[in-house]
Amino acid sequence: MDPVTPVPSSLTTDLAAVVGADHVLTDAADVAPYATDWRGAYAGTPLAVVRPGSTDEVSAVVRLAHEAGVAIVPQGGNTGMCGGATPSGDGSQVVLSLGRMRKIRDVDPVSSTMTVDAGVVLAEVQQAAASVDRLFPLSLAAEGSCTVGGNIATNAGGTAVLRYGMMRSLVLGLEVVLPDGRVWDGLRSLRKDNTGYDLTQLFIGAEGTLGIVTGAVLTLHPATPARATSWVALPSVAAAASLLPLLRDHAAERLTTWELVSRPALDLVVSQGVPDPLACDAPWFGLIELAGPAGATVGDDLESALGAAVEAGLVLDAAIAGSPAQRDGLWALRERISEAQESLGPTIKHDVSVPITSLDDLVSRLAPALEQALPGIRPIVYGHVGDGNLHYNLSRPESLEPDAFWARAAELSAIVHDCTVELDGSISAEHGLGSSKAAAASAYKSEVEVSLMRSVKDALDPRGLMNPGKVLPLG
Amino acid sequence: MDPVTPVPSSLTTDLAAVVGADHVLTDAADVAPYATDWRGAYAGTPLAVVRPGSTDEVSAVVRLAHEAGVAIVPQGGNTGMCGGATPSGDGSQVVLSLGRMRKIRDVDPVSSTMTVDAGVVLAEVQQAAASVDRLFPLSLAAEGSCTVGGNIATNAGGTAVLRYGMMRSLVLGLEVVLPDGRVWDGLRSLRKDNTGYDLTQLFIGAEGTLGIVTGAVLTLHPATPARATSWVALPSVAAAASLLPLLRDHAAERLTTWELVSRPALDLVVSQGVPDPLACDAPWFGLIELAGPAGATVGDDLESALGAAVEAGLVLDAAIAGSPAQRDGLWALRERISEAQESLGPTIKHDVSVPITSLDDLVSRLAPALEQALPGIRPIVYGHVGDGNLHYNLSRPESLEPDAFWARAAELSAIVHDCTVELDGSISAEHGLGSSKAAAASAYKSEVEVSLMRSVKDALDPRGLMNPGKVLPLG
Repeated sequence: MDPVTPVPSSLTTDLAAVVGADHVLTDAADVAPYATDWRGAYAGTPLAVVRPGSTDEVSAVVRLAHEAGVAIVPQGGNTGMCGGATPSGDGSQVVLSLGRMRKIRDVDPVSSTMTVDAGVVLAEVQQAAASVDRLFPLSLAAEGSCTVGGNIATNAGGTAVLRYGMMRSLVLGLEVVLPDGRVWDGLRSLRKDNTGYDLTQLFIGAEGTLGIVTGAVLTLHPATPARATSWVALPSVAAAASLLPLLRDHAAERLTTWELVSRPALDLVVSQGVPDPLACDAPWFGLIELAGPAGATVGDDLESALGAAVEAGLVLDAAIAGSPAQRDGLWALRERISEAQESLGPTIKHDVSVPITSLDDLVSRLAPALEQALPGIRPIVYGHVGDGNLHYNLSRPESLEPDAFWARAAELSAIVHDCTVELDGSISAEHGLGSSKAAAASAYKSEVEVSLMRSVKDALDPRGLMNPGKVLPLG
Repeated sequence: MDPVTPVPSSLTTDLAAVVGADHVLTDAADVAPYATDWRGAYAGTPLAVVRPGSTDEVSAVVRLAHEAGVAIVPQGGNTGMCGGATPSGDGSQVVLSLGRMRKIRDVDPVSSTMTVDAGVVLAEVQQAAASVDRLFPLSLAAEGSCTVGGNIATNAGGTAVLRYGMMRSLVLGLEVVLPDGRVWDGLRSLRKDNTGYDLTQLFIGAEGTLGIVTGAVLTLHPATPARATSWVALPSVAAAASLLPLLRDHAAERLTTWELVSRPALDLVVSQGVPDPLACDAPWFGLIELAGPAGATVGDDLESALGAAVEAGLVLDAAIAGSPAQRDGLWALRERISEAQESLGPTIKHDVSVPITSLDDLVSRLAPALEQALPGIRPIVYGHVGDGNLHYNLSRPESLEPDAFWARAAELSAIVHDCTVELDGSISAEHGLGSSKAAAASAYKSEVEVSLMRSVKDALDPRGLMNPGKVLPLG
């Protein structure tokens, strides 16, 4: 742990003058929800938690911290997976919560845009879009509590990336408070603006290390009330990869979801009471969804695609949802996995991606390598096969105590990550780096790439006060 | 003109040792095609033109220039609109042509990716994608001679941006030679990679001012053999804007093209022999195209959308292409405008974008303001209404000599640009800044935004040797 940095005693007083005393938290009980992440995997000790209520207040807070030389950790819904919003343990950092900035500033169905405060919860954005017959397609497990600012800071993914891209593809403009407190107003709603470096994209995925996103212009998509959903049994991961172009040939962009589920992952959710629609003795399964505007022939398209897939030997058996309730049942097979895995004890999580054509190689190499390292280890594998992204998560052998399993985490993760990088993959496909993967990512990257990233960081945050140690390791 | 910078006399000799004497051009006749842009609007005098044949050679060339303190101007197909690839006039800059780097390195129809050298011509990329039943959707007038590297450097747009986005949306990874000659290998073909700052997006649209793109991984889309195309007569620009959500409600992503053409622009191409399919006395016209996979019901979708549009008073009359030849005829009405306008004398071109809901305001304000500034001026307006992007181009009054008209260019452009910026628009929607718009863009931008851009430039190119004066003005 670093030694405690001496802080001007007047800082919390000055912060209270900006945001009001009620919004500067320093009591241990008050700061606790902000000091630890939702999973309890990362814990810190903030100097204070500040909750500004406007962009001007964020600017004033950052300016005060900058003058005092105090580091800031921005925090949205605190639902991240990698400790990106957790402060250090030495009591030297201020947590800046965007939780009070929850205004939807504008919704424009003709331009298909929405302008929001960073603290708006993702589900509220989805609902506001739906209320004007539009779709905001970002969808992920934490959508009821994660914020748009967090989605932007981490470039969030989810189950509709295949069709709509990650958060990066859904943002037209940003408002950002810079490390010295200046405000960059880049809140443009233009579809085309070719007047220089794309600063918007630079701040997206930067995890608050270059500045604090306070507002955003989001792009909306046409609503897709017509949906067709299928659960399929697959002979192999290679078949799953080959199925992607076949599905695209039949449905093109209307292919919205193509998720992979391993047999052990399916067995786990079925054991917890979710009905298995196929009862097929296959090693892999998948969830396919097509969606389109009212009247779109997505049901016919799905049936013809599945017919061709069975004929080509890529699909062994398939169930098609005949009602919204059946659709929910199929989705539960995919969505309940993460929760179900908790029943096996602690989970060592991975979020890797490889070129789609290398997915089969990845799972073929990892299973024996992990079994050799820790006999009886239980990989629970699922993910977004259309994006080449697997959550290759590990549960302990039945006979091993949780603590003893957890002690092997670094070694086991290295096996997963080494193999991923050998296949030209990424060790963080959609969760970002936070503090937990920053060092590993820098170690796997080339020296040139790390030096480029450090150049950008040093240029925009020369004093290193914005979320230190996230994305790039300290030192 | 700046004074000539003294250059070590050995530089051209050293360059020849890297690329071969045949590929270092210094004779005036040899360098002429590289010294002037294709329109003849910008002219410079290079110290030399170097034509490396590989990434390693580009790296060695840049390293030599860096050591000698000589600036480099990267050049692809030399088809840009803003002088971005033209050297200065003082004989101090080396033009680095990517024209010999024309290898398609890999095409993968399963992953839907293609890896190419920067010097590959756009039309070759389109053909290579089509040969494996995929689509590379970027499409623009210069596609027969512009290069992928130029498309990336300028973040090129075109007629399919509405559906597929600009070049920025079509690139997964890059290989870039940095200002000191180091090579950044970011040639990843991953759909998801969340391991730090998005360097790929930073180099896209940077016009070679941060480094030289030598290779790229492109993303391909499903082929769209089913097409339906219509030419429509419109009562107003406001109707054109309102038509966008209506078309999207019927066709969602299958709406590929929604182009606007003003009455004078139509009259011009018709006067040059292109048949008018409607002969309707309307002030505005448009070209609509839907596209989808084989068997897609795009014809039905288009008919139902147009029926609803006529009912809503947004469309006065419509013609639907009944054959590929008729489709080509409708496209000619849009594609021949730029060439046809040359018959009126010199064209003062603008490439502006505003929020779609402000398009009507823009044209309503500009027409009288320009007429007042120069009575008899002939605006020939057309563009990508779905993106809020108009080419608001000006031809001289019949009675005014070309030179006298050209002398008013700065004043007339200021009218167009001022109005665009007042409506929260951009003065360069898809053409970039080059040397011609760099100063204007910086003047319209906020001080904060310009300082952010300069920070990035200074961080990556501290000696200022990469395409100086482009994107950001000198000094």
